[in-house]
Formats: sequence, C-alpha cells, structure tokens
Amino acid sequence: MSLHDPIEYEQASPEVRAIYDDIMATRKTDWVNNFWKVLAHHPENLQRIWNNIKQVMGHGALDPLTKELIYVAVSITNNCGYCIASHGAGARAKGMTEAQLAELLAVVGLANETNRLAIGYGVPVDEVFQSR
Amino acid sequence: MSLHDPIEYEQASPEVRAIYDDIMATRKTDWVNNFWKVLAHHPENLQRIWNNIKQVMGHGALDPLTKELIYVAVSITNNCGYCIASHGAGARAKGMTEAQLAELLAVVGLANETNRLAIGYGVPVDEVFQSR
Amino acid sequence: MSLHDPIEYEQASPEVRAIYDDIMATRKTDWVNNFWKVLAHHPENLQRIWNNIKQVMGHGALDPLTKELIYVAVSITNNCGYCIASHGAGARAKGMTEAQLAELLAVVGLANETNRLAIGYGVPVDEVFQSR
Amino acid sequence: MSLHDPIEYEQASPEVRAIYDDIMATRKTDWVNNFWKVLAHHPENLQRIWNNIKQVMGHGALDPLTKELIYVAVSITNNCGYCIASHGAGARAKGMTEAQLAELLAVVGLANETNRLAIGYGVPVDEVFQSR
Amino acid sequence: MSLHDPIEYEQASPEVRAIYDDIMATRKTDWVNNFWKVLAHHPENLQRIWNNIKQVMGHGALDPLTKELIYVAVSITNNCGYCIASHGAGARAKGMTEAQLAELLAVVGLANETNRLAIGYGVPVDEVFQSR
Amino acid sequence: MSLHDPIEYEQASPEVRAIYDDIMATRKTDWVNNFWKVLAHHPENLQRIWNNIKQVMGHGALDPLTKELIYVAVSITNNCGYCIASHGAGARAKGMTEAQLAELLAVVGLANETNRLAIGYGVPVDEVFQSR
Repeated sequence: MSLHDPIEYEQASPEVRAIYDDIMATRKTDWVNNFWKVLAHHPENLQRIWNNIKQVMGHGALDPLTKELIYVAVSITNNCGYCIASHGAGARAKGMTEAQLAELLAVVGLANETNRLAIGYGVPVDEVFQSR
Repeated sequence: MSLHDPIEYEQASPEVRAIYDDIMATRKTDWVNNFWKVLAHHPENLQRIWNNIKQVMGHGALDPLTKELIYVAVSITNNCGYCIASHGAGARAKGMTEAQLAELLAVVGLANETNRLAIGYGVPVDEVFQSR
Repeated sequence: MSLHDPIEYEQASPEVRAIYDDIMATRKTDWVNNFWKVLAHHPENLQRIWNNIKQVMGHGALDPLTKELIYVAVSITNNCGYCIASHGAGARAKGMTEAQLAELLAVVGLANETNRLAIGYGVPVDEVFQSR
Repeated sequence: MSLHDPIEYEQASPEVRAIYDDIMATRKTDWVNNFWKVLAHHPENLQRIWNNIKQVMGHGALDPLTKELIYVAVSITNNCGYCIASHGAGARAKGMTEAQLAELLAVVGLANETNRLAIGYGVPVDEVFQSR
Repeated sequence: MSLHDPIEYEQASPEVRAIYDDIMATRKTDWVNNFWKVLAHHPENLQRIWNNIKQVMGHGALDPLTKELIYVAVSITNNCGYCIASHGAGARAKGMTEAQLAELLAVVGLANETNRLAIGYGVPVDEVFQSR
Repeated sequence: MSLHDPIEYEQASPEVRAIYDDIMATRKTDWVNNFWKVLAHHPENLQRIWNNIKQVMGHGALDPLTKELIYVAVSITNNCGYCIASHGAGARAKGMTEAQLAELLAVVGLANETNRLAIGYGVPVDEVFQSR
C-alpha cells in the first residue's frame, strides 16, 4: 500500500525530469526506481535526498560496494523490505557475490544477537575502549 | 549498571580460562574484554557465542575489516553503546581510518533516513528488484 | 496474515457491540476499523485499549491533529504498515494536507538520521540541556 | 563515551567557523551545541547535515514547534538520549508547555503499544485505508 | 538526565498519594520506584498507566513470572536500561533464578539474530503457518 | 520477495539433507519450514544456526513453551512477520492457548509503551535496582 503512485517520466514536471535525468546519468542506467518516483510528489525532498545520496554513496575513503553492504545491513536491521530489495540489487550490481551476501547476513544476524546480550547484561565499557 | 561483575582470569574456572585463552590466542592479544567476562557467568553461552564469533568474523568472502564495519553499522542502528565502543575499536585495530569512520557514520545515518521514507511512503518494490 | 479474523458487528457479543457503538459514536462514523475487530477476540483488551485511546487522543494541551501526526511519526519509525495506513487516514480526516504529510515524512526521516549520528558519535549532552 | 571531543569555535577551521556562525545566526543564539561540534571533525558531513536541518525544520506547511514535537517523538522511540535532551530543549524554546510534553509522551507511549498490537495480531489493512 | 525529579510521597498531592498507596498495597511493599514518582508530574497518566499495569500484569492465563520474563525480553530488545533494571528486579522478586536469566538472555539474543535472518532472506511464510 | 527459493529435500545435498533429517527428528515432525530451506543456500550458516537453536531452545531452567513465548515477544517487537508466524505456531504446538496469546500480546504492547515512557522521561534508576 503506497501513499502515492509513482510519477513516471512522461507525467513528471521539467523540474522532476531534470532530477530523473541526473539519477540516470549518475547511475549510467536508463530507468529510475520507484523510491524516487514516489518522492517526486515533493520535488524539494526529491532533490534534497538525491543530493545526499550522491554526496554520501560515491567514491571516497570507503568504496561504493562497502557502502552498499553497510546500507543493506542497516536496512535488514530496520526491516525495510524496499530498501533490502533495492540496495541488495545495488550491491549485486557493484559486484557483491552470493558468498558475500551470505556472510553479510551472518554478520548482521550475529551483531543483532550480541547487541542484545551486551544490552541485557549491561556490560560495562572497558577502560581501553574509553581512552581515546 | 551491570547484571553481573566481570569474571577476571584469576577467578575463572578452568573451563572459562580455556575459552579466555582461545580468545586471546585467536586475537593475538593478552587481555579479554568485559563482554566475555560477563558472559562467563554462563559458560555454556560464553562458549556458544565465542564459537559463533570465530566462525562468522574470520576471513572469508568478506574481509575482517568489512565485517567489523557492518558490525558497527548494526550496533549504531540498535544503539548499543558497548558494541559501538568495542567493535569501533576492533575496526580501528583492523585499519579503519577516521575518514572511513566518518563515511560509515554518514552511510548509516542516511540509510536510517531513507529506510523511513521508503516505509512511510510505502514505496512499491520495482519489478526488476523482484525478478531474481 | 492475521492471527484472527476480524469480528463483524453482526457476530459480536453484546459486550463487544457496546464498545463498537462507543467507537462509532465517539468518532462520529458508521463503521469500525479492523484493529478493533481483531482485538475483539479479547474483549478485556479491546475495552482497555479503547479507553486509553479515548483518554489520550482527545482534545487537550495538544490538538487532535498534532497527536495524529505524532502517532504517524512513531508508526513510521516502528515500520507498522497498518498503523501508518490507519493513522495516516486519521490525520487526513483531521485536516492533514499533502504538503504537511511531505514535511512530516521529511522530519521523521531526518530525525532517524541524526539520531544515529548522535548515537554513533556518542555526542556528550551539553550542560545547558542537563540543567533543568 | 564520545568518538571525538567537540571542536570549540576557537580551535575550529575558518570553514567550520563559518558553519557555526550560520547555525548561531539562524537560531539567533550565541552558542553551538555539541552535536555540531562533534560533526565538525568531518566538515563535509557538518555542512550537509546542517543544510538538511535548515531546509527541513524551518517554517513550512507545519510550524516549527510541531516539527520539534515530531522530532522528540522519533527520538524517544529510537532511545536517543542526546536527541531527546536537545530537541526537548528546542521544543521548550519554541513554546512547548509541560502539559504538552506530558501529552506528547502519552501519545508516543500509546503509539508504541498499539503498533505492536497491530503487528502481533497481523491486523489486515481495511479496504477504505487502501483506496487512495 | 531526567525530565523531572521524582515526586516523593511527602511532596505528593492527596490524589498522587492515593495511587502510591495502591501501588504499595498491590505489590505488598513499603516503597514506590522512580518510574511512578516521575509519572506523578502528570497524575492522569500516572493513574492510567498504573491501571493498565494492574490489569495486564496480574494473575491470568499466564503466571506473573512469565509475564515479567516477557517484559524483560521486550525491554532488552528496545534497549530500555531502566526497564531492564526494574523488571529484572521484579522477575527476581517473583522467583527468577540466575540460570533462568541466562537462558532468557540466550533466547532474546538468538531471536534477535534469527529475526534478521528471516527478514534479510525474505523467507516466504509456509502455507501451514498461514492456514488458521 | 525472497532472496532465494527454498531448497526442497529432494534437491538438497547430502550435507543439507542430514541437517533437515536432524531438524525433523529433533522436532518429531516430517517436514522442514522455509526458514531452514532458505538458509540451506549457505550450509555453514544452516548448520551453525540450527546448532544454536537446538542448544538454546531445548529443556533447561526455562520450559520450551516459555522460551517460545519470549521468542514471539521479541519477534513482535522487531516486526518480523515470518518469525511471528513460525514461533506463534511453535508456541501453539507446545500448548499455548488463545487466552495466553492474548495476554502475551497485552504484555508485549504495554512493555513497548512503558519502555518509551521510561526513556522519554529519563527515569533515574532506583538505588535498590543498582545494588546487586
């Protein structure tokens, strides 16, 4: 159930089309996924979020695949089905193998387990971790 | 506030000491962090969780640093202070730079934002993401 | 997938019908949504939760629309699809415009991002925020 | 425990000082809270997040106080202590009364309860909520 | 950091004292914990929440200890330090042993792990689980 | 949407069949649910997670039904639809009655509410809860 139908390129305003064009050019693809087509109902948010994604997810101290893996890990922890599907596909497009996906899932699952053990036991932070 | 005081090596049973020894040998360190010293109140859990960590976090299709980055990303999303401190230190020990940490935090923050936008808008999953 | 089928008015016990009647009278509508029809399998919970909603969501220091906006914000953060749909409709019924919804979503998304930045960086609370 | 010490104005680079100046000018205050002083270790993120906050939290279809209330509601749901303290203070500065805070907390608590009831019972979405 | 100082019995209004008296009488204790003393700043919420606790946590189809264990499990998953401390103490007062606590923590941790594996893999619900 | 199709017994490798056989023998059933059939795409994880479940969920200081109730409580709080369905069925198979389910849901909902009240008010932990 969606709050809004996606806005297709044909229906989009020139302002929104320009953002779609930038998304496709940046990603070297000829289509735009629904996330952007739904955000397009509020062009100001569409532009703002796309600017953030472009700035954060590009090449930097971390490579784009590692960033996608982190994105998928957060999306699984938050149970965002759309985000798991879209960033899972993004990670595959950037070279994630099935073996890497299986290890990613294992780490995400285990981290969620030990997070609760540390929280439940109220483990005191070791001095060496505090001294920075 | 901790449910149990950490069990130091000197106070530990031979069974627990053997696990501490394995932790230190595996990590090539001469100390054990509080997470394990608190779990030691239940040796069966201590052994089980340590076995899981050893199996999941070692070398594989993903390198150990990438796994630590994923661990930190999940721990931040779950707000586990101990886990952020311990795995943040672990990531640094495996070579994470300040620039990489800053980008990790940027990705984790942005993923948490777009997760809620996708959830709030109820964005329908694109067909191309469903066909596998 | 639902644990229980909704209990329709016709099938409901007099005790449950009385609560349905109160819901419809309070909301000035002629129907009851599924949340209540499912809770009706446990009349004690149905009565208790409805009493809470009536006491909390009515007019007070905050107007009913603001309360619905807060309800939607929490429901998005918790990824409760039913709650987003029902309270989103409730907010619209109380006058929420599309422009307000877009801003609500922007605030909810951004708050989820900065929450993780504050948690991940472990930002110390400013003295001025502590002195009360 | 913080990953980084806050960067005070005196120690800050001209680039960071300019952002601090904009924060103080925009908020009509003579100080900057720690969230920004910690983000300052990565000026690119500091600038990006501040730009987002300025764009999202200003006057619009929703008034600034309502936006702060939504921010606090999300921060409580995510258990972000720093965010509750800073945006709670922000809401008070924008006129939130103690009575309004008490009602905000009541709505946030109740929403978190009914979210889990809807999720646990797997309540099917009413047709009227789906037709948009 | 607390939004309000706890209201002690001596400072409390007759209305609030009556609720404190009911809490102590119901629990057969001679003191009231801070949760109620802070809620007392809003007597209406204090009365409402206490009524809910009395109705839900008493003897029923589930025994009070099992209910406390469930309460602790939810509080650990939500990372509520106060709730872990208070309901952990409540569970001990109702007979929880250290061995039971260790198993509770093991189940909570493992459930948080497998939850993410089921979510991450998008495991389809088995037909037998759907037919009800 | 699933990342992988479940692997049926007929298609499974001898290694995976052996685990399926152990699952069916341990549970005294003649079928395996999809969670395991999807994990089977990574036999190492399948074996590891099954070993954990066998060790944690069996008879101990807590009876198996109580453990299933805790599992369902966590799964509802995390909004894991598959886990609610599978462990809800597991709890029924171990004797959970509809009345017990209704009380479980009431406790889970109320705990999620009071968790946020304690977090939002920043209730200070009572000394008596700290001294252990």
